[in-house]
Parts: sequence; C-alpha cells; structure tokens
Amino acid sequence: MHKLVLIRHGESTWNLENRFTGWTDVDLTPTGIEQAKNAGRLLKAEGYEFDLAYTSVLKRATRTLWHCLDEMDRTWLPVEHSWRLNERHYGGLQGLNKADMAKQYGDAQVLVWRRSYDTPPPALEPTDPRSERGDIRYAGLAPEQIPLTECLKDTVARVLPYWNESIAPAIRSGKRVVVAAHGNSIRALVKYLDNISDNDIVGLNIPNGIPLVYELDANLQPIRHYYLGDAEAAAKAAAAVASQGKA
Amino acid sequence: MHKLVLIRHGESTWNLENRFTGWTDVDLTPTGIEQAKNAGRLLKAEGYEFDLAYTSVLKRATRTLWHCLDEMDRTWLPVEHSWRLNERHYGGLQGLNKADMAKQYGDAQVLVWRRSYDTPPPALEPTDPRSERGDIRYAGLAPEQIPLTECLKDTVARVLPYWNESIAPAIRSGKRVVVAAHGNSIRALVKYLDNISDNDIVGLNIPNGIPLVYELDANLQPIRHYYLGDAEAAAKAAAAVASQGKA
Repeated sequence: MHKLVLIRHGESTWNLENRFTGWTDVDLTPTGIEQAKNAGRLLKAEGYEFDLAYTSVLKRATRTLWHCLDEMDRTWLPVEHSWRLNERHYGGLQGLNKADMAKQYGDAQVLVWRRSYDTPPPALEPTDPRSERGDIRYAGLAPEQIPLTECLKDTVARVLPYWNESIAPAIRSGKRVVVAAHGNSIRALVKYLDNISDNDIVGLNIPNGIPLVYELDANLQPIRHYYLGDAEAAAKAAAAVASQGKA
Repeated sequence: MHKLVLIRHGESTWNLENRFTGWTDVDLTPTGIEQAKNAGRLLKAEGYEFDLAYTSVLKRATRTLWHCLDEMDRTWLPVEHSWRLNERHYGGLQGLNKADMAKQYGDAQVLVWRRSYDTPPPALEPTDPRSERGDIRYAGLAPEQIPLTECLKDTVARVLPYWNESIAPAIRSGKRVVVAAHGNSIRALVKYLDNISDNDIVGLNIPNGIPLVYELDANLQPIRHYYLGDAEAAAKAAAAVASQGKA
C-alpha cells in the first residue's frame, strides 16, 4: 500500500482579495504561511515521512512546501518543480475580482468560468502584459504549451502526463511522495484517481493548506482518502472555496 | 566562458555563539537571513541568472539558498541537495566553544584543528548522541561514509566526486550554476579550482553570505574570481572568520 499526500497551497494574497489568480505568481498571506506550517506540523505529528516532493513553478505552492518541510525538519528532501502542476490558467480573468465579475456577469456565468469542466474563460491576448509567454521560467516550452486560458479539462490534459511519467513511477518504485500544488491541479489529480465524472467534479473543492491523504494499492488505485486534522474544519474550508464566486 | 557562483551560508546560531558546528544542523540567525537576502539582491542587481542550484543537506545552506532565490524571484529553480557539500565534520569538537577550546588547549592547537590540511580533530564515538549515524537524511549511505571527524583533506576527498560527477558536467553542458554551501566545502572547491597548495589553503577564509564568482574557461580552468559587492566588506568578513579560534 502506498500513501500519497496532496496539499493545496495556503491562502494567497489574491485568495484574500478574492481575485482570479491562475498562473499569476502571487505570494502567501501571513494566514497562508500559518496554514502551510500547520500542514507540516500535522504531518510531523502523524509520523509522515517523504522521499520526494513535487510542486509547481509558482511561489505560493513552493513556499507552502518549504514551510511544510521546515516544520517537519526535512528541508533537505529532493523537490521537483513542474509547470504541469501549476494552477489552471484563468485567461482574461486573471487579476479580476470574483465578486465583481459575479455582479457584472451573474453568479451563473462566474460558476461556469470557475467550475465548468470544458468551457474555458475568455483567452488572454498573447501580447497581454498578463501573459506568461515572456516569463523566463517557461523559456523551455514551446509557445503553444503556454496557455492563454484553460478549462479544467485542459488542466487535466497537461497534469496527467506528469503524473504518468514522473509522480506515478516514483510512487510505484516505493518512494513516499508529497505534492504541494493548486486547487485545480489537485482537482485534476483527484478526478483521475477517483474516476470522478465531468459533472461531479464541479462540486469538488479543495481547501487551502490541509494535507489530503490518498491510500493507493499496488496498481495505484485509491483504497480511501481523508484530510489530516480536524475533518469539520476541512469541510468548512472547502465550502468557503465553493462560495468565492458569488456576488 | 562559464560563471560559477559559490555562496557560504549566512551567519548561523553557532557562528554567533562561536561554537564548532560541522554537521550539526543549526539554523541561521536573523543576521544570517539578512546576509542571505542581501546575496540574492546583489545577484539580482548584477543580472545573474541560474539554471540549477546545488546545496548541502544542512538547513543553514538550504535556507541561505532559499532566501537568495526568493530575492531573485527564482523560487522555481531546480535545487539538488548533497551530503557531499556539507560542512567539514568537526568530530568531537562539534558543539564546543572555539574560544573556550583555545583557552584550554591554546590558540596553536585550535588553529591546527581548524585549519590543518591533514590533521583531523578527535573523532566522535559512533555511539555519541552528536553522531549523525542515526540521522534519516543519511540513511542511504554506508556507515563508513558518515564521518566521525574530518580534516580538510577528507572534505576535499568527498566533495570532489560530486564536483566531477554532478556540478562540472552541468557547467560544461552550459548550465549556469550556483552552489550554496559551507566554509570548508567551498574551501575544498576553491583549493581544487585554483590548485592551491596544502600549506596555502590554511590562510584562505570564506566570508558568510557574499557571492564568490568564478569565471571558468571551456576546460573549467579559472580565469579569475571575485566577490560581488563591497570588496572591503568581504575582506573584513573573511578576516573575522580567521580570528574565530583565538582565546
């Protein structure tokens, strides 16, 4: 039996300001740092050990991982970064306020943008200053690999190759893995692992900074999953994520 | 032409307390954090970019690197940890005060322990609670690879394979490399790069938190080297390191 731990980053400055973030590289708030440290304390208290950590190339996930490893006294663990674990790209909505958009376009439209499986938000223009196409961290990618918008289906499509080629082989080889990533890259993994339908994934929300443990069999099929710590707090935090897009 | 940047970690709690540290995993002081951030600001101001970072498995070096990368807005860079970049093991002196030892054994004896090329300090007993033989981060090593004491010659002997097998090939392949490490693992690299004699290396001291740049030719032979920032401050900081072992 393998254990895989998934952690969504702690609260970011744009979570706090209720803005669509996507690939914008905003940092953690003091609350987010505390959540990350608390995740590390929980993992340490429960006796978790890891051989390998994965994270995105966005600092809110990296910093969450660093604080976590620091609390576990495991700052020496190998960490692999991949853009494939980045948050879903939010296209032209990046930087805009979720409640403002709900007032302007209605709750229903914002729910489609936030949670539709296959309808992406309006795309960024490649020349938009918010586009990541000139960002040095993506210099090794072909321009068409750098999204201008994504629906969750697109996110699943770029997360899964990384799962199949990097994370799953590491787990199969016996390595104990933690992934510090984002609401939608984690939803992509969870959808795949639990074989959740395109419709049902809409209602699934991942709270910030609470370790989500998957117990997997030898074929990496989930046996069960659970949040570490206070289950009620995790449910409340997930419900808060769900309500962010309301006017 | 290649550029290699070496950074000794910022001031640690035991640097401040003037204690022999070695493999003991002490953290940075607030001054050390500031030195690390300043190294990052200097590298950013001078336009340095890196493709790959190396550090030890000790948190004072890792944290120095993290603060550095953070200031450069490069928290997404790949980082490779190796025990081979650890500080020289200080044997039975680990944890003891340098000035106290100088009072007890004389400045000359402490200078031998601190700077002799081939005379190690007294060894730790394998059962000493200060020994790292039960430390999970070294679980992949054979017991005899985990030192009980080291002279600089021993440190050179375990640093160089890592230089030859990991760092040098990365540089040759065109990768821009930064190494955040320790006084003696950096002295080991510098001795090798500049072909410094066993006698002359005694007088070489590496200041905390100041980027040391090596310009290397295609065969990785040094063309020149220099500290970034205020040269006078670097010289003063190196002199302070030299005087730590006096009563």
